Amino acid sequence: MVRKPTPEDKFSFGLWTVGWTGTDPFGGPSRPALDPWEYSDKLAELGAWGITFHDNDVFPFGSDDPTKKEIVGKLTDATEKAGLVIEMVTTNTFSHPVFKDGGLTSNDRAVRRFGLRKILDAVDLAAEVGASTFVMWGGREGSEYDGSKDVYAAMERYKEGLDTIAGYIKSQNYDLVIGLEPKPNEPRGDIFLPSVGHALALIAELEHGDIVGLNPEVGHEQMANLNYTHGIGQALWSGKLFHIDLNGQRGLKYDQDLVFGHGDLISAFFTVDLIENGFPGYPDGPRYTGPRHFDYKPSRTEYLDGVWASAAACMSTYIGLAEKAKAFRADPRVQEAMRYAGVYDLAEPTIADGESLEAFRSTDDGFDPEKTAERDYGFVALQQLAVEHLIG
Amino acid sequence: MVRKPTPEDKFSFGLWTVGWTGTDPFGGPSRPALDPWEYSDKLAELGAWGITFHDNDVFPFGSDDPTKKEIVGKLTDATEKAGLVIEMVTTNTFSHPVFKDGGLTSNDRAVRRFGLRKILDAVDLAAEVGASTFVMWGGREGSEYDGSKDVYAAMERYKEGLDTIAGYIKSQNYDLVIGLEPKPNEPRGDIFLPSVGHALALIAELEHGDIVGLNPEVGHEQMANLNYTHGIGQALWSGKLFHIDLNGQRGLKYDQDLVFGHGDLISAFFTVDLIENGFPGYPDGPRYTGPRHFDYKPSRTEYLDGVWASAAACMSTYIGLAEKAKAFRADPRVQEAMRYAGVYDLAEPTIADGESLEAFRSTDDGFDPEKTAERDYGFVALQQLAVEHLIG
Amino acid sequence: MVRKPTPEDKFSFGLWTVGWTGTDPFGGPSRPALDPWEYSDKLAELGAWGITFHDNDVFPFGSDDPTKKEIVGKLTDATEKAGLVIEMVTTNTFSHPVFKDGGLTSNDRAVRRFGLRKILDAVDLAAEVGASTFVMWGGREGSEYDGSKDVYAAMERYKEGLDTIAGYIKSQNYDLVIGLEPKPNEPRGDIFLPSVGHALALIAELEHGDIVGLNPEVGHEQMANLNYTHGIGQALWSGKLFHIDLNGQRGLKYDQDLVFGHGDLISAFFTVDLIENGFPGYPDGPRYTGPRHFDYKPSRTEYLDGVWASAAACMSTYIGLAEKAKAFRADPRVQEAMRYAGVYDLAEPTIADGESLEAFRSTDDGFDPEKTAERDYGFVALQQLAVEHLIG
Amino acid sequence: MVRKPTPEDKFSFGLWTVGWTGTDPFGGPSRPALDPWEYSDKLAELGAWGITFHDNDVFPFGSDDPTKKEIVGKLTDATEKAGLVIEMVTTNTFSHPVFKDGGLTSNDRAVRRFGLRKILDAVDLAAEVGASTFVMWGGREGSEYDGSKDVYAAMERYKEGLDTIAGYIKSQNYDLVIGLEPKPNEPRGDIFLPSVGHALALIAELEHGDIVGLNPEVGHEQMANLNYTHGIGQALWSGKLFHIDLNGQRGLKYDQDLVFGHGDLISAFFTVDLIENGFPGYPDGPRYTGPRHFDYKPSRTEYLDGVWASAAACMSTYIGLAEKAKAFRADPRVQEAMRYAGVYDLAEPTIADGESLEAFRSTDDGFDPEKTAERDYGFVALQQLAVEHLIG
Repeated sequence: MVRKPTPEDKFSFGLWTVGWTGTDPFGGPSRPALDPWEYSDKLAELGAWGITFHDNDVFPFGSDDPTKKEIVGKLTDATEKAGLVIEMVTTNTFSHPVFKDGGLTSNDRAVRRFGLRKILDAVDLAAEVGASTFVMWGGREGSEYDGSKDVYAAMERYKEGLDTIAGYIKSQNYDLVIGLEPKPNEPRGDIFLPSVGHALALIAELEHGDIVGLNPEVGHEQMANLNYTHGIGQALWSGKLFHIDLNGQRGLKYDQDLVFGHGDLISAFFTVDLIENGFPGYPDGPRYTGPRHFDYKPSRTEYLDGVWASAAACMSTYIGLAEKAKAFRADPRVQEAMRYAGVYDLAEPTIADGESLEAFRSTDDGFDPEKTAERDYGFVALQQLAVEHLIG
Repeated sequence: MVRKPTPEDKFSFGLWTVGWTGTDPFGGPSRPALDPWEYSDKLAELGAWGITFHDNDVFPFGSDDPTKKEIVGKLTDATEKAGLVIEMVTTNTFSHPVFKDGGLTSNDRAVRRFGLRKILDAVDLAAEVGASTFVMWGGREGSEYDGSKDVYAAMERYKEGLDTIAGYIKSQNYDLVIGLEPKPNEPRGDIFLPSVGHALALIAELEHGDIVGLNPEVGHEQMANLNYTHGIGQALWSGKLFHIDLNGQRGLKYDQDLVFGHGDLISAFFTVDLIENGFPGYPDGPRYTGPRHFDYKPSRTEYLDGVWASAAACMSTYIGLAEKAKAFRADPRVQEAMRYAGVYDLAEPTIADGESLEAFRSTDDGFDPEKTAERDYGFVALQQLAVEHLIG
Repeated sequence: MVRKPTPEDKFSFGLWTVGWTGTDPFGGPSRPALDPWEYSDKLAELGAWGITFHDNDVFPFGSDDPTKKEIVGKLTDATEKAGLVIEMVTTNTFSHPVFKDGGLTSNDRAVRRFGLRKILDAVDLAAEVGASTFVMWGGREGSEYDGSKDVYAAMERYKEGLDTIAGYIKSQNYDLVIGLEPKPNEPRGDIFLPSVGHALALIAELEHGDIVGLNPEVGHEQMANLNYTHGIGQALWSGKLFHIDLNGQRGLKYDQDLVFGHGDLISAFFTVDLIENGFPGYPDGPRYTGPRHFDYKPSRTEYLDGVWASAAACMSTYIGLAEKAKAFRADPRVQEAMRYAGVYDLAEPTIADGESLEAFRSTDDGFDPEKTAERDYGFVALQQLAVEHLIG
Repeated sequence: MVRKPTPEDKFSFGLWTVGWTGTDPFGGPSRPALDPWEYSDKLAELGAWGITFHDNDVFPFGSDDPTKKEIVGKLTDATEKAGLVIEMVTTNTFSHPVFKDGGLTSNDRAVRRFGLRKILDAVDLAAEVGASTFVMWGGREGSEYDGSKDVYAAMERYKEGLDTIAGYIKSQNYDLVIGLEPKPNEPRGDIFLPSVGHALALIAELEHGDIVGLNPEVGHEQMANLNYTHGIGQALWSGKLFHIDLNGQRGLKYDQDLVFGHGDLISAFFTVDLIENGFPGYPDGPRYTGPRHFDYKPSRTEYLDGVWASAAACMSTYIGLAEKAKAFRADPRVQEAMRYAGVYDLAEPTIADGESLEAFRSTDDGFDPEKTAERDYGFVALQQLAVEHLIG
């Protein structure tokens, strides 16, 4: 048993996570919906530091302004009282059937205009409630059939939308950054921006890309058969890891949104290790310092007791893994194994400072490929040390 | 039966494709290795326009300069005689065990230096034989275990290597561009630059990124559960589709390198449609005009007859799909279905030219989400038209 | 364009297919629900021969007997008038939250008893409406977490349930067989009977297994990374292919239920080839003669026009593939390629009739492995002939 | 750090595991091959109890009888001296190109005859060296293209081959059983008997199926997107879990053969829990009591030190997980959570002993689906207890 979470841990939850009532493609809700403040109160009690939400997690689609104001007011009162931060806000442009072909990249311009307005309204809401990140998950931006989408046009419209939103944030001096959330598929057959890489590539083409970064989700990268820790590593290298979504996934299937750690546990260990301890070769290098945000779903088999148990489990597992990761890095055997494996060596430039390319190419440093090929990297032994720390 | 290929089709093959002798993780060669020029002669006879190769497809690893010179000379004589172009050259930094942890991102700096030199030598070779593209597939750049690689350092070294190579190309005024080839895994558990997106994201951080683009392979993107046509679409949008690798893959498994079209046939149809006909909404828009390059493997069950039959099949399928894609686009029913589906609409900006954001947000254009939600996009009908053209 | 479907084609549709209103994990319905007879009337008009349904596709969960009787009566009147067969009936033991841990293998015995009664009621209904197959898809029989299920007990309960149902069918002299429908996951993390093989293995342990067979679905096998044609081939070999579910799936992701042929088209071709033409080496061998049943979903982007277009597309594609498969088998070049490939040879026993094992082992037939290893099987050329027929 | 392995642990290794020299589809060997007895000596030193081998792990393909005799003699002398058991023997019918289309199901009858003879020879060898299990992995039995195989004929030939071999074992009174090893793909595009289920289904059709069971491999089931623990659970239920292959796999990709526990660690925990502690509801129920056999590959990055470290890691992880699984089952909190979750309840028959079907169906037991639907199963909490034990 690990210690209880505290606000210093910066754990946050989407209201839609504990608020998921269990509807899936094959069945209806298995538990009741509570009011937004009931979720936030309970999360505070469990030790969370913050909450996040989609506009329509709080007020229904199509609510008029007084209704929005009233409900948001109740929620902010409740979170303030509970000592919770509202760290991120996002827009739902995927549930209502008007968005069945997407919001920013719908083939229907009227829908694109409606979607963009809805997002801009949510930006104002995010600023109003003091969020620092505005997440955008374009879950319906994509297609099932290649013929139904002009991919070039889709990228143009995505860029137009993002630059409009980011430009608006700047024009209002909002203290907000945008976090794009990639996903390869579900609910569309193929979603645009399917991975961390694709989203980084789009950002590189933006006019206002400086305030646009990523919100990578564990399960989403794994649904593209990719390594999550590598993904956030590359995002950090590009200076674009603005937010994270922690959860669990068991392989190539529907989006499971399991409790963090209930998917690929070894991967979760190294993810926490990177977040908590940074890159081995760069002690003062880039670090992720944002919220530890959980985007998961309590299994449909659970009623309300199970909902709270699952939220607690996310935090508890994270704390346990963080403690183990600290011990792992501090263990002299591990440090020696990392040195043996050459992990620190990789931070050294290949061409020496000041070395000319001519000199580099003509140097006879007596390198013997056959001899060097016999090097034992000890990667398996290093991994076994990690497993021993993890289950030790 | 389709017409025979001609040089205008710009079909090219890697020597390692028809040259694969069948060794796989569970068995040895099932056919003999021929000399490089035997492959190129036969490819010319079948109607290919060009060939490509890794340095060590032509001369053995560790060959001295006179040996290289002699063998390369024989090959260029043969290709010239056969009227073949050598359109691309690449380096093998993955077969010899010295590269077991990679070339540019090995944890061993001496290996990185050796690898970088080998690549630079191959750049000279590429220029010498008149290639226009220099492909880099970093198949051993990656890891099986997250603890064994500092991802930040790996990205730093990848960038250092690429900038060194691209800078050298510029310094020599070589008429060469670099095409990075992403792959998610195999032979490493997780390879760096696992998808088109990740490679584009790296390129965006380079100093000499202007001459660095992509060489996406059908099967590699599909091994990451991704849509190849979307991938090359995004690459074209970023101005980075420099080269392509056409082949076939049947789902999430080992790298199959099947004949083009013997994997996901509908996807192959739309890939050819994009290459031959461009984006529907941009008749004068960006197009891929480079070689139609096949990177496949004749199945291990085939002997030499099967090798040549498989090479012919790649070209024949491409020609057949290209003819069908032309007819598809020209069919008035298809054009009407695309209009009905809103495919052309997506090229229209969401915010009108000159429309201010304030005006955009405050306009009451009487949009009714419930009403618009009832729009029938006709995507399935459009797809069925594609299938009818494909099998019609 | 192919000919219109006729009743002789034996095309049937689940009411839940055209009746799916578009609710998915991320959004609500995108089109209205019609009455059951509206679907059947329209399907008849399109050329379908039969329909199928879950009990709760027709009447709501928990309906009393008079309500059931009235609604079922209306439906049977409508189908009779339309000349449609009700060829299969199944039970919904997955939508209501009482079944959130399954029906036959729920960890709650009271639920198991309730589920078994509901299934037996549906068996009576199936018999009453004249169905010949009773399908059982245990979509909620499974788990997300290995610790939550005793697999031995689950198999015991599955067997108990199936033997009870099959025994009841026999006791009533109903002209019904049971078709188990495997699926690897979704909505559960791991479903019991994940593939054709697992279901066949369970049937082999049943007391009343003689009337229990399979209803394999294209997409379900492909979600387990398996070859559908191989799967139904093995089921036919075991004498257990009682029913089929045709649809399309694009790889390892959520259950897409696309139009038949809109997934892996080459696989669909060979599936139709096997169904229509049987095994090449056994002209008088086992054949599937049951309904060509579609279990698909019209994409959520479609409104009602798209629903009917998609149903028509399923049938049209099947007819087109069937025509092509006939031509494929009749083509002398194909027959020669199959002979060259040894396809017919495999039907010949390895040990000759009457040959003793001793004689077999001691015979020196001069077999030379090195020489025989040089055989060219021509598998790629044969596949290319199939592709040419498919797209020719 | 866990205790050292002892012979009581029944750990065994294939000679081909530690003996893999690193050749993969993209590179040659990265370490030297040792003599068979060098591997067995070292394994004994590390604490292994037994070894296993393919015929051609010990003597080269095509060796004459005196050569075989001499080499096998040297090996048995060495194992005897080292106190090692040779617990399993298998045949290599996949490496030599003569088997490029399979052994038992090759389209070439001469190859089938040769393959069957080779297998029978290996059966004699297995009996001679005292093995108790004869494993058969038909890695080349399958196809890349559906048209190239008559699946019915393939199943007929598989059955013929297995019945011939099993019948021969019986005729010789050998104390041997056969363990079939399923695999979905690699090296063939689709392999026959792709999963535990398909192999069980074939066995059910055999004449001599009583001595034919399974040897399921962790990674092979996971390559079919399946749950390994469920798979061996069903095999145990069918009385067919004769042998196991423990290793690690990280999702849907090439066959990784990682160290046991270096893949899906939570799955590995529950696999060990089932092997060591049996089914929760059947304390005296069926158990696996055979060897704990590792079929893995030391990563190609390792030289000989890494080879031995990886073999030690397999055993060490197993011991660690076994200790944790014991503690997990003994923990009263776990037992209470299992009771709460209904895990034990599932062992109770759904219909009471002596209860008639009529009585069962007509009983009004006041079941309220809405009320029961509110049951909280506590599956997530139970899983969290497992994770806490695992990483505690």
